[in-house]
Amino acid sequence: MEKCVCFGEVMMRLCAPEGRRLDQTDSLEMTFGGAEANVAAALTNFGLCSSYVTKLPDNAVAKAFLGQMKAIGTDISHIVLGGERMGVYFVEKAFSVRPAKIIYDRKHSSISAVQPGDIDWDKAFEGATRFHWSGITPALSPEAAHESEAALKAAKRHSLTVSCDINYRSALWTPEETSKVMTPLMEYVDVLIANESEPKLVFGIAPDAKYYSGSRLSAEGYADIARQFTERFPVKAVGFAIREGMEEGKYIWSGLLYNGTERKHYVSSKYDLQIVDRIGGGDAFGAGLIAAMMLGRSAQECVEFAAAASALKHTYAGDFNRATLQEVDALIASRAR
Amino acid sequence: MEKCVCFGEVMMRLCAPEGRRLDQTDSLEMTFGGAEANVAAALTNFGLCSSYVTKLPDNAVAKAFLGQMKAIGTDISHIVLGGERMGVYFVEKAFSVRPAKIIYDRKHSSISAVQPGDIDWDKAFEGATRFHWSGITPALSPEAAHESEAALKAAKRHSLTVSCDINYRSALWTPEETSKVMTPLMEYVDVLIANESEPKLVFGIAPDAKYYSGSRLSAEGYADIARQFTERFPVKAVGFAIREGMEEGKYIWSGLLYNGTERKHYVSSKYDLQIVDRIGGGDAFGAGLIAAMMLGRSAQECVEFAAAASALKHTYAGDFNRATLQEVDALIASRAR
Amino acid sequence: MEKCVCFGEVMMRLCAPEGRRLDQTDSLEMTFGGAEANVAAALTNFGLCSSYVTKLPDNAVAKAFLGQMKAIGTDISHIVLGGERMGVYFVEKAFSVRPAKIIYDRKHSSISAVQPGDIDWDKAFEGATRFHWSGITPALSPEAAHESEAALKAAKRHSLTVSCDINYRSALWTPEETSKVMTPLMEYVDVLIANESEPKLVFGIAPDAKYYSGSRLSAEGYADIARQFTERFPVKAVGFAIREGMEEGKYIWSGLLYNGTERKHYVSSKYDLQIVDRIGGGDAFGAGLIAAMMLGRSAQECVEFAAAASALKHTYAGDFNRATLQEVDALIASRAR
Amino acid sequence: MEKCVCFGEVMMRLCAPEGRRLDQTDSLEMTFGGAEANVAAALTNFGLCSSYVTKLPDNAVAKAFLGQMKAIGTDISHIVLGGERMGVYFVEKAFSVRPAKIIYDRKHSSISAVQPGDIDWDKAFEGATRFHWSGITPALSPEAAHESEAALKAAKRHSLTVSCDINYRSALWTPEETSKVMTPLMEYVDVLIANESEPKLVFGIAPDAKYYSGSRLSAEGYADIARQFTERFPVKAVGFAIREGMEEGKYIWSGLLYNGTERKHYVSSKYDLQIVDRIGGGDAFGAGLIAAMMLGRSAQECVEFAAAASALKHTYAGDFNRATLQEVDALIASRAR
Amino acid sequence: MEKCVCFGEVMMRLCAPEGRRLDQTDSLEMTFGGAEANVAAALTNFGLCSSYVTKLPDNAVAKAFLGQMKAIGTDISHIVLGGERMGVYFVEKAFSVRPAKIIYDRKHSSISAVQPGDIDWDKAFEGATRFHWSGITPALSPEAAHESEAALKAAKRHSLTVSCDINYRSALWTPEETSKVMTPLMEYVDVLIANESEPKLVFGIAPDAKYYSGSRLSAEGYADIARQFTERFPVKAVGFAIREGMEEGKYIWSGLLYNGTERKHYVSSKYDLQIVDRIGGGDAFGAGLIAAMMLGRSAQECVEFAAAASALKHTYAGDFNRATLQEVDALIASRAR
Amino acid sequence: MEKCVCFGEVMMRLCAPEGRRLDQTDSLEMTFGGAEANVAAALTNFGLCSSYVTKLPDNAVAKAFLGQMKAIGTDISHIVLGGERMGVYFVEKAFSVRPAKIIYDRKHSSISAVQPGDIDWDKAFEGATRFHWSGITPALSPEAAHESEAALKAAKRHSLTVSCDINYRSALWTPEETSKVMTPLMEYVDVLIANESEPKLVFGIAPDAKYYSGSRLSAEGYADIARQFTERFPVKAVGFAIREGMEEGKYIWSGLLYNGTERKHYVSSKYDLQIVDRIGGGDAFGAGLIAAMMLGRSAQECVEFAAAASALKHTYAGDFNRATLQEVDALIASRAR
Repeated sequence: MEKCVCFGEVMMRLCAPEGRRLDQTDSLEMTFGGAEANVAAALTNFGLCSSYVTKLPDNAVAKAFLGQMKAIGTDISHIVLGGERMGVYFVEKAFSVRPAKIIYDRKHSSISAVQPGDIDWDKAFEGATRFHWSGITPALSPEAAHESEAALKAAKRHSLTVSCDINYRSALWTPEETSKVMTPLMEYVDVLIANESEPKLVFGIAPDAKYYSGSRLSAEGYADIARQFTERFPVKAVGFAIREGMEEGKYIWSGLLYNGTERKHYVSSKYDLQIVDRIGGGDAFGAGLIAAMMLGRSAQECVEFAAAASALKHTYAGDFNRATLQEVDALIASRAR
Repeated sequence: MEKCVCFGEVMMRLCAPEGRRLDQTDSLEMTFGGAEANVAAALTNFGLCSSYVTKLPDNAVAKAFLGQMKAIGTDISHIVLGGERMGVYFVEKAFSVRPAKIIYDRKHSSISAVQPGDIDWDKAFEGATRFHWSGITPALSPEAAHESEAALKAAKRHSLTVSCDINYRSALWTPEETSKVMTPLMEYVDVLIANESEPKLVFGIAPDAKYYSGSRLSAEGYADIARQFTERFPVKAVGFAIREGMEEGKYIWSGLLYNGTERKHYVSSKYDLQIVDRIGGGDAFGAGLIAAMMLGRSAQECVEFAAAASALKHTYAGDFNRATLQEVDALIASRAR
Repeated sequence: MEKCVCFGEVMMRLCAPEGRRLDQTDSLEMTFGGAEANVAAALTNFGLCSSYVTKLPDNAVAKAFLGQMKAIGTDISHIVLGGERMGVYFVEKAFSVRPAKIIYDRKHSSISAVQPGDIDWDKAFEGATRFHWSGITPALSPEAAHESEAALKAAKRHSLTVSCDINYRSALWTPEETSKVMTPLMEYVDVLIANESEPKLVFGIAPDAKYYSGSRLSAEGYADIARQFTERFPVKAVGFAIREGMEEGKYIWSGLLYNGTERKHYVSSKYDLQIVDRIGGGDAFGAGLIAAMMLGRSAQECVEFAAAASALKHTYAGDFNRATLQEVDALIASRAR
Repeated sequence: MEKCVCFGEVMMRLCAPEGRRLDQTDSLEMTFGGAEANVAAALTNFGLCSSYVTKLPDNAVAKAFLGQMKAIGTDISHIVLGGERMGVYFVEKAFSVRPAKIIYDRKHSSISAVQPGDIDWDKAFEGATRFHWSGITPALSPEAAHESEAALKAAKRHSLTVSCDINYRSALWTPEETSKVMTPLMEYVDVLIANESEPKLVFGIAPDAKYYSGSRLSAEGYADIARQFTERFPVKAVGFAIREGMEEGKYIWSGLLYNGTERKHYVSSKYDLQIVDRIGGGDAFGAGLIAAMMLGRSAQECVEFAAAASALKHTYAGDFNRATLQEVDALIASRAR
Repeated sequence: MEKCVCFGEVMMRLCAPEGRRLDQTDSLEMTFGGAEANVAAALTNFGLCSSYVTKLPDNAVAKAFLGQMKAIGTDISHIVLGGERMGVYFVEKAFSVRPAKIIYDRKHSSISAVQPGDIDWDKAFEGATRFHWSGITPALSPEAAHESEAALKAAKRHSLTVSCDINYRSALWTPEETSKVMTPLMEYVDVLIANESEPKLVFGIAPDAKYYSGSRLSAEGYADIARQFTERFPVKAVGFAIREGMEEGKYIWSGLLYNGTERKHYVSSKYDLQIVDRIGGGDAFGAGLIAAMMLGRSAQECVEFAAAASALKHTYAGDFNRATLQEVDALIASRAR
Repeated sequence: MEKCVCFGEVMMRLCAPEGRRLDQTDSLEMTFGGAEANVAAALTNFGLCSSYVTKLPDNAVAKAFLGQMKAIGTDISHIVLGGERMGVYFVEKAFSVRPAKIIYDRKHSSISAVQPGDIDWDKAFEGATRFHWSGITPALSPEAAHESEAALKAAKRHSLTVSCDINYRSALWTPEETSKVMTPLMEYVDVLIANESEPKLVFGIAPDAKYYSGSRLSAEGYADIARQFTERFPVKAVGFAIREGMEEGKYIWSGLLYNGTERKHYVSSKYDLQIVDRIGGGDAFGAGLIAAMMLGRSAQECVEFAAAASALKHTYAGDFNRATLQEVDALIASRAR
């Protein structure tokens, strides 16, 4: 049975009620989220085996997060306790023409100060078949970047399939810094998850101009980006979550998967969504892709699963995808009719 | 003045807050609902005369429901108190691509164990002109099926106009069981309310294939279903609530009424809806149809009223339609402009 | 630096939770709103200088409103305390096909009984460059109409640029009464804000029939209305907030500004909105127009700013626009791409 | 079977959440209350027959109140619809050493402008055996005072037993005005409900100084006040709700009933209370007294019932006593052990 | 290391907000509770090893409960899924002079229909040192009584220390039925937990009259009850949770432990409590006693721990004691000063 | 007119709902608090002139705090914007026998990294007559300790009366560190606010043993501590907030003021409190003392005012005292009767 280990930062998310700014409320919704924790939780909710690894302070705030992961059933036995604090981020949710406003207070977190040896990767990888990380972790601090590399080296020692979501965060570092740190780490990645803009910003990988009609990039354009990745790095597959329709007040969600071996791309059904909570939608796409791969599904099935799973994610409060395997498959089936 | 008696089961509905699963909340919204109670309440809210008949346990939970019906003004003087319990159902509401998830805990309810003589139908029907029931009631138990038949016989003795919503529930019985029980009961029905799939599932009544373009059934197709009903049973009119646009992320709501005497069908305006609570939408359509008939409106006016009333229902929390006659007519008028 | 003084009535707004009628709730959301207070608050939130003038009772209810204005930073030092009460209005919010239901309880308010001399306009206008009022104030009572005129005379003495939102309210007076009172006051107005129907209702100013296709008025039609205003009154510019798409279940929002000097009109981008709270949307349009003028922007920039600002308003709870200058400009920029 | 008609003003009560001032909240708890409506509702909740008479505006706010009375089951068929508004009062609840802060906005209410003939007292008193009113009603306006007298005259024509709660409100009138209006009305009263201070303030009836130890009035002192009432007016019985223990941070609640015929007083058990909502506690005492009299209980039983019922009232949210007859009797029984 | 297995029924608890009756609310607080689940959760929260065994339906409602137990960390691997439903109980919480009102809807639950062989007790008891049950389980149904006995036999085979809380429930059975079923089961019990009234009601074991002063039973009286238990059954220790002060509006909480070997009793400190949630207070006392025994504490320490732990329980929302070992010990220490 | 400048750290306070632990909730109550901000806000609410000085990050979280201070009316014009973050603290509120649990996340806050010159004390002290600080500020960091000293030196240059609350925080530093830093700063203090334990812990100042009966320190004992302060430092007056009754489940609150010039102490009335929110109670006592001094009241009046004001504080949600001058005086008057 496959098992995926996810590594990264988790933060407390404090969200103003819908339609309110932070100065219009005296009550905040508390959930927890982080790109890789979101993937781990989603995998467990699909009934798959996952483990989440991070470093957290030994206090009641972190305990509340750990309780939620235990309730879901994700393996948390390799989480290390210690350090100063858990990051916090404040959110005014996006709504219609209004973009989300996020205030990060994540500096000095336990994971950003992780020390070599804090995490015993050989132990954490026992029984694992996959490792998932994202570009946020090396962005946090030199220590976290160092630990990411240590994890990747151990992953390769353990012959794990490595997936990575680029997740470029302009609040944490510049494209130049990102490029410098991420480029060598790409050597360890088997499955890459990206969006339209990151490849160019971080790696200078842009699609041919012919793939654009206005500002809209065609499926072939995404495939062109992916192809360049597979040629430049040992990356074998690239997944993209695609959002369209913003100008028309819509939120149309789909995915594309490029298979480097076949040099072929697969596009999913499109979902015209209404939204409860869009944070974690991209992570849910990544988790869907990984899950479908863990289930041994075909490339077309993988991208359909990833798109449907992440479409459902937009309907749940909080960062985590709460959909089950059966529910994702039922959505796919309802579209196939 | 017309008076409609409605008979069936009412349950406590416990609903997770929007966007949450049952394991993401520690607070549930409590309302009450049942196909026939929803019709009775809607009629009263239109200013019409209705009575609701059921059997409920003699406890504070049922008392809370009774208080709500009294506040609305529906006659509850024929409700029988006694028996073990009131059914409960738990709801995770539908949202965008996510379907509703409902967990029923309705077995062993007082109404499902109703005994002959518990309800004095002759008394309940005093002053009444109409009787409304649905296919859920005979599905509950042999006792409830028996009482449904007793009610129908009494209704005919009292020369009431009988309306019935097929309301097939796969969680309660199979199509075969439904067919066996419902077929003889159709002999008592004057006005039938159905959806696209029930006629085929339960009665083997399907439209000619030519009425489909892809999976979409034309108005003539609905009329074809209705025509077959009027030919096979003494049914005089058939109403359909029609939902379209799901694939495009839309919820387009309308209605169709087939008049068996004229052998003619009438279609309503279409409403492109956003939704607060879709549970009870179909019941609101039925109630709208009955209400318009009680008001002596024409066939076209009846289907417009039913569609507009049930469109408004989608904007109120809870199972009940809270719209007034004036508000429904104002919506119809705004569309006629 | 420009400073705009706004004068009018503010009420406590008591709103049923979304999807509920007043008889379905035991909790009301308390905010405060009034056409001119909404403009004043919006201007302050843009970082501009504004003052709000009214008369309020000297009690804890009014104090709660004053605290909110102080938190925003609007100058409230010219608000007069005294009189009987603050008006209240109860709201069931509009949702989808359901229109808003508003119950006003605004009679006998302190401002409606304002006495000559209560407000020292010369002091209130110190340092001001603009005065904003709306047609609601003279509609409240003869006293309030008298005070409106006194304010306008003082505004002209102080050479202020005067803006006025017609804001015809059928619950307060008839078109004939409105016309009689408002016509002489138009002599003081530099910038007029109107909707499609008010000019005809109140001033008998209608566009040529050729500008209509069905019930839809073209941009040229709005310009035609505006032109007539500038010809009949000393009005120099007319702004319109335009809502379209209702029949398709949409809410498409835009604006038009007519420049009387150039005899030219400017139309904004269109925003296909989802809505948290539409009350105050028109006031936010007016505030956006005034703000852009205070910032010295061009006519095209003014109408874009007003439309974008008021589009954002629809995404905030409460009457006030909470958007900052930067956020409005960012939305404009995102559409320009 | 006995039936008690209650007449007076009902207001919407808007209450800040516990521990908050009006400027610390954006949500208000909406209930309805009025001294006499509270009595009517309490009687119905005991299973007794009561009717509530008032005048209310014909709008959705009043409809919400009427729905709540219908849910309880109080007869509202004699309530007259019309007039301008329903009074509102804002509450910051008392807590520990902090007294309640109440802001009344009750002027210009429909009931305060009631006109002769609005209420058909002969019809309202059909089948009634009792009439209950309080000193708040004549305090509202000359019109309401006039209608109070009209009601009392009709009550005597119908040979009703009249109960009256003095309910002196310093915000509405002075002791002198109260005395002038209330003194003649005392001629109609059979059962009087008072507190320690009102008799002296309004009627100059004070106990002999010997009944005081410090500021604490003995039971004999209350009886002395009562005796004077029965000697000066045709009053036959006087009830007092007594609160003690404030200095020690306690809330000790009890009652005393003076029987004028026997010239004897009866004291109840004492209840050391914690409080959910103390508003309506005195009304619940009056209702308890009336209820026990309607049930034909002895004087001692009456005062025990009134004290226990009103003790329970302090544990329910809202003005109304929600206790049933069985629950009050159970509390009495638990103390008798 | 010790491990305690707890067996019994768990129900969904639906609680009206404080101060409200079920017909005053449209929102219910959802938690889960059951006498033995409460013990299991409390033990885990103390950092001790516990397992909870029951039978639950395989649905989302039960899944929500299981998630909460997993979050706490109690072993749920021996819970059996299947059967019809999970019991529900509705609560209006006790407050001041108002007793709690509970409406049970627990019939036909999965555990009440448990079949021999559903639970593999030998597997469930692997590694266990203790078994805890209560008198509620055999009261549910003959099937549950049979399974209780099966569990007790297996417990003895595994040489477990057995604790039992009598937990007599008059809603489930009569004292006679209880006596008949419970008497033989007492043969398996090592540690008994009781209150003042149960021993007499169920087993006819009453203290000598001399131990009463009025209705108050002295510590020696409790010891006298306990002594009789240890003489009649193989019971080795008896614990009592004691509540006093009701008449003075107080809630004074303490405990007493009788050691049958020493024939000696130990009394705890007294806690004068204010209360968030008193449901589960008795279970928390039992859990405290078992925990202290698992920790090898002395008899005096055991009763102090049980009293302090259960005192703290009254301050947490929900049935479960959320206090940690450190927090209980800190409370004990603060009293020892 | 007097004006008091307060300087220190303010944090966001995130509080679990009453009765819940942090892992039992998904909603946190957001308020803001800090020892000195609490004093500044309280003074403004009394109608007095105060200014609050700190350093805060330039983000929406700090903006929400600033809005609340503006709503109250405290001068915030000397607050410096910049730096990394605002401290956060998580609270599980104390209830009955359960102590509060607080998790601080305050490291790396903007104020703890304040740099010389960030704050222009000469400007901040313009028009001021008093300066208030507490021992928390120098505990934060060497930078904050340095700035405290700078402020004190400037205060003396401006001849301000300096008040200081020792506020020893064991989570921030040891008694030894505190002593080392605080001792020289005592040279600047005119009015000291302390509790029973701090003087001994930090300054080795303990009362003579004869003043203790058990663990209870007599008023003379407090005076003995105060006398020693006035002899060792230039302190002229010492105030103590005193809490008693914990063992009996009570919360009895009072104050004591020692006047060094008269060498005399004054004790206040005692308040037996029930509590909404006890955080900030000590700060409210300090603010009450300062306020009464600013109002020129006598020593006895000062301690009565401080005790009554802080008693009221316990009844308001949040850290700030919301009582007005009139409300405090009314409470004092009610006790004087």
